[in-house]
Amino acid sequence: MMSESFYRYGVGTLSAMTDAPGPTTSVAMQDPVYVAAVVDLLAVIAYGEISAFERLAEDSKLAPSLGDKAALAGMAATEFFHFRRISGRLRELGVDPIEAMLDFVEPLDGFHERTAPSDWYESLIKAYVGEGLVADFYREIAEFLDVDTRTLIVESLDDADQASFAVARIREGIAADPRLGGRLALFGRRLMGEALSQAQRVAAERDALAGLLAGGVDRPGMDLAAIGRLFNRLTENHTNRMEKLGLHA
Amino acid sequence: MMSESFYRYGVGTLSAMTDAPGPTTSVAMQDPVYVAAVVDLLAVIAYGEISAFERLAEDSKLAPSLGDKAALAGMAATEFFHFRRISGRLRELGVDPIEAMLDFVEPLDGFHERTAPSDWYESLIKAYVGEGLVADFYREIAEFLDVDTRTLIVESLDDADQASFAVARIREGIAADPRLGGRLALFGRRLMGEALSQAQRVAAERDALAGLLAGGVDRPGMDLAAIGRLFNRLTENHTNRMEKLGLHA
Repeated sequence: MMSESFYRYGVGTLSAMTDAPGPTTSVAMQDPVYVAAVVDLLAVIAYGEISAFERLAEDSKLAPSLGDKAALAGMAATEFFHFRRISGRLRELGVDPIEAMLDFVEPLDGFHERTAPSDWYESLIKAYVGEGLVADFYREIAEFLDVDTRTLIVESLDDADQASFAVARIREGIAADPRLGGRLALFGRRLMGEALSQAQRVAAERDALAGLLAGGVDRPGMDLAAIGRLFNRLTENHTNRMEKLGLHA
Repeated sequence: MMSESFYRYGVGTLSAMTDAPGPTTSVAMQDPVYVAAVVDLLAVIAYGEISAFERLAEDSKLAPSLGDKAALAGMAATEFFHFRRISGRLRELGVDPIEAMLDFVEPLDGFHERTAPSDWYESLIKAYVGEGLVADFYREIAEFLDVDTRTLIVESLDDADQASFAVARIREGIAADPRLGGRLALFGRRLMGEALSQAQRVAAERDALAGLLAGGVDRPGMDLAAIGRLFNRLTENHTNRMEKLGLHA
C-alpha cells in the first residue's frame, strides 16, 4: 500500500525513538531542515483548509433545508478561520502563505475532484469521514513536532460540532432509505483510498515533509513498525467513524 | 421612488422625535410589537448574511489568484460568523432563527439573482458597494433600536478589511483596462437600484419592520423629512464609495 519512497524515509531512521515527545520549540526552530518541513506541513494543512472551505460552501447548496445549509456553511467558515490562523503562523516564520501553498494545489484539488459528492448525503460523509481522517493524520504527525506547532495544528483540527451534526443527519437519512447505506459505505471507502494515495504522493514528492516522520539526529522519528501502527490507528478510527454512521468500513 | 406603503408608515408618526436616541433595552423589550419588529429585522439581516456568505464563497471561484480567493473567502467566513451571532440573539428572544428567516429568502435571493456578478470585478463591486449600502441602511435603522440590539447590529456590519482589499483590486483593474470603469459604474448603479427596490418591498410586506421607522407612542420615529434625509445619506455614502473606486455613481 505504501510507496517505496515512503518506506525509505521510515527505514532511514536508525536512531528512531518511536513515540517519544517532539522537540522543544526554541531548539527545533534553529534547524533549517526542520523549519522547512514545518513550513511544508503548515502549507499543506492551510491549503487543505481553504479548499475544504470551498467544497463545504459549494456543498451547502445541496442542503435540503436552510438549517442544514447554515450548518455546512458553519463548517466552511470554521475551516477558513483555521486557515487564517495557520497562514498567520507561516507569515511569522517569514513565509508567504500563498506561495507556500501553491505546491499543494494540484494534489489536493485532485483529491477533491475524485471525491466530489454526488448528493447531500455524500457531502455529509465527506465532511465527517473525510475531514476526520485528515485530522487524524495531521494529529499523528503533530506528535513529532515542537509544542507550539503541535498546539497550533491540533487546535486547527477541532471539529467537534460538525461531527455530531453529520452523524445525526446521515443516520436519519439511512433510516428513511436503507439502500442509502450501501452507497454511502462505498463512498466512505473511496474517501479512505483517495486520501491515502494523495498523502503518499505528497510525502513522496516533498522530501522535507517525509523527513519529519524520519526524524533527525536530535529528533525522534518513526521506524517501519511505528509507521505500521500509525496506519493501523488511522484505519481503526476510520472504521469507528463509519460504524457511528451505521456503515461498514 | 418610495412606495405608498413606505410613506404611510412615515407619515403615521405624528409624535415623531426625529434623530432622538432609541429606547433602552429593558423597557423596549416589554413591548411585543417592538420585539416582533426586532425579530423581523434581525431575521432579515441574518438571512442577508448567510446569503452573502454563499455568494462570496461562490464568487471566490472567480478570483484570479489564490490570494484573492482567500480574501473573498475571508469575507464570506466573516459574514457567517455575523450570521451565527445574530442567530444566537434570535434564539435568546425565543425565536427559531431558521423559521424567522424563511420570509426573507425570496426577496433576498431575488436581489442576488438580479445582481449576479458576471466576472471577478463585478463580484468585488458587489462585495464593497453592495455590502456597504446594506450596512449603511441597517446602521440607520439601528439608531431607532434599544442599545443592545443596536450594538449587535452595528458590530455585525463591521467590514473594514474587505473595503480596503476590494478598493485596491478594483482600482488596479481599472488602471490596467480603463474601459472596465464604465461597465463597473453601470453595475454599481444597478446594485443601488435593486437594493432600494428590495428594501421597499420588504418594508411594504412586513408591517412590524416598517413600524420600526414609524416609531410608537413611547418611541421616536421618522417623519417624511427624516426619511428623505435618510435616503440622502444613503445616496451620498454610495457616491463616496463609487468615487473611492474612481467611478461615477
